[in-house]
Amino acid sequence: MVKYFVGKAKIKNWDKEDVLIWYFPEKVNYSCVFTLNDVKAHPIIFSKEVYKNYKPVSFLFANSGNANCLNGKEGYKAILNIEKKLKDIFKIKETGLFAQTGVIGEDFPEKNVLEVLKNLSLKNFKDLKTKEDLKLCARAIMTTDSFEKYEYYKDSEFEIYAIAKGAGMIAPNMATMLCFVYTNASFSKDELDVVLSYAVEKSFNRISVDGDMSTNDCVFLFSKENGIKVDISKFKKVLTNILKSLAIKIVKDGEGATKVMHIIVKGAKNRERALKIAKRIGNSLLVKTAIFGCDPNWGRILAAAGSVKLGINVNNCTLLIGPYLLFSKGEKTKYDEEKVRKYMEKNEIIDIVLDLGEGNSYEEFWASDLSYDYIKINAEYRT
Amino acid sequence: MVKYFVGKAKIKNWDKEDVLIWYFPEKVNYSCVFTLNDVKAHPIIFSKEVYKNYKPVSFLFANSGNANCLNGKEGYKAILNIEKKLKDIFKIKETGLFAQTGVIGEDFPEKNVLEVLKNLSLKNFKDLKTKEDLKLCARAIMTTDSFEKYEYYKDSEFEIYAIAKGAGMIAPNMATMLCFVYTNASFSKDELDVVLSYAVEKSFNRISVDGDMSTNDCVFLFSKENGIKVDISKFKKVLTNILKSLAIKIVKDGEGATKVMHIIVKGAKNRERALKIAKRIGNSLLVKTAIFGCDPNWGRILAAAGSVKLGINVNNCTLLIGPYLLFSKGEKTKYDEEKVRKYMEKNEIIDIVLDLGEGNSYEEFWASDLSYDYIKINAEYRT
Repeated sequence: MVKYFVGKAKIKNWDKEDVLIWYFPEKVNYSCVFTLNDVKAHPIIFSKEVYKNYKPVSFLFANSGNANCLNGKEGYKAILNIEKKLKDIFKIKETGLFAQTGVIGEDFPEKNVLEVLKNLSLKNFKDLKTKEDLKLCARAIMTTDSFEKYEYYKDSEFEIYAIAKGAGMIAPNMATMLCFVYTNASFSKDELDVVLSYAVEKSFNRISVDGDMSTNDCVFLFSKENGIKVDISKFKKVLTNILKSLAIKIVKDGEGATKVMHIIVKGAKNRERALKIAKRIGNSLLVKTAIFGCDPNWGRILAAAGSVKLGINVNNCTLLIGPYLLFSKGEKTKYDEEKVRKYMEKNEIIDIVLDLGEGNSYEEFWASDLSYDYIKINAEYRT
Repeated sequence: MVKYFVGKAKIKNWDKEDVLIWYFPEKVNYSCVFTLNDVKAHPIIFSKEVYKNYKPVSFLFANSGNANCLNGKEGYKAILNIEKKLKDIFKIKETGLFAQTGVIGEDFPEKNVLEVLKNLSLKNFKDLKTKEDLKLCARAIMTTDSFEKYEYYKDSEFEIYAIAKGAGMIAPNMATMLCFVYTNASFSKDELDVVLSYAVEKSFNRISVDGDMSTNDCVFLFSKENGIKVDISKFKKVLTNILKSLAIKIVKDGEGATKVMHIIVKGAKNRERALKIAKRIGNSLLVKTAIFGCDPNWGRILAAAGSVKLGINVNNCTLLIGPYLLFSKGEKTKYDEEKVRKYMEKNEIIDIVLDLGEGNSYEEFWASDLSYDYIKINAEYRT
């Protein structure tokens, strides 16, 4: 069970929830996945240390509006001060995990957060039970997100509560996104590590908005220690679907995104080749802008695939956009361009299927298009 | 000596020069650098074969408006037909090199080109001598370029004539650009190979507009066989400077570009690390959009540097934009944001200097910003 608190600390000059605390009254096991960026925000440095030593944790603290990154030693001290205050509030010795998101390189407004915590007690916490609760939690970690991202799962055996944040700077290897998951299904740390790394690989590591990688990404999975015994392969499947669903929501909410490309590369010699090519297509600016313009410019898709330099042979390749075969074994087909364009205009998710004609492996990848609004959001982010 | 012809074949529905032919009445040695994309346009396939067997060449044929790529066997036949016609015109047995640029995947309008060649004879060719001649040659290979790119060099010993094309899809490894160079300095094939690969590495492989790699890039260097004997290291230096100058012009003319970032990464353990980080900064969409917005968002620059995952330590790093020190050894400096912004607004070339504080190596890289016009040009390219 999770008790949650959502507050407004005015971390930025806004009137929105920007602080989220989860408190676990019962013992939990947990697993984490962190950004691989050399430049790590203070919450990542702190939480990695906790995880490395597998210290018992009783809470999660998250905020939006300030990434607490590249702002000197004071940023790290702020986390220690918040940690101390939360231990007092919960009357515990255990520490917690920290996650923060927002602008990089600015002083963290520690005072604003401590002001919110000042008179806080367990009485102010609510049970995390309904979708409305989840939505409220998700809202507190939003930055440029335009909608709350959350998933609730329940069957006869167990429950999963999951929220995520992310709208830009999304790329393979989880660039700027946060995701927190709680389940009453019970697993050991080692089991959670296996399950989470698999699910993240199949979800957040298969999406791209702009190819950038953040200093603050993390995914935390908490599991009740004395919870319900569940078959691990079933749990893995359910968790993967939940994270995949959240990942696709992040792409849909990509900064300025109007379309989601669902890229399937099949007929590959192996999955590694398929994934590399799918990623390159999803990250190509020329493909992204063509998709934004609803232009079935399949030449750019093939050129992006070829630029990975894996030795693919276009004379074996076929390419579909939606149900339309545009290119087959080295030759353009006689497709009706107007129909393809209409398909692209009508649908939010554009299916792109590239068959390399060299084997039996396949992989998939989701990526947003690139629009005027991406530029607007990111050229004017701090102003 | 080069004799040139520039014509209008209406390869696209435009009234601009789109065909360029260089004829070499005297024997030449030559060297080539080609795109590494698996998907290669027909002119690349043709010219690679010529170069591989080092067949004697007596001409260069280039056109803009159609890349002659991914359009089936007919596209390759078109080249053979043009080759045949040119051999007739020049009354020669030697072949030539082909380069084409423009839209991918469309039938090549061979007839339009042959119509231009129909009544052509050597009388229609002019000597390549003046800057005006060069400019006219450069114009014929322009697609979305907004100005002609050419360089002329002459000293007491030798001359170099160089033209280039490129405005989008520019990335390391020479994505969509053409460059043709002629010199009356005389070198063997092996010497030309060494000199050209060095000069390309220091110029076209150090620029980026959008990180994409084309199917049609090539650089051709022609040298008069019985020309002037010149010290090779002197020639290498001059050629490198010429190609660098053309490369920077390409970045300046990047589709929708308003600014050029000149990124210097220094204090690195080795040059490879420095170059990888400089490239990543230049290709980061978040950095590009910040530069477009004249926002000294140094956090994005450091985050991009860290995302290469080479184990850099921000506590050793310093970062300057122009003359302003923004970040020093883990801490933001007390800089005047308004001054930095003004520097960025005033200058077309923005200097970004990142010192990793780990060694003595440095590298440099040029990249454009990312503006609304990039999206406009590329979302509406074919319409």
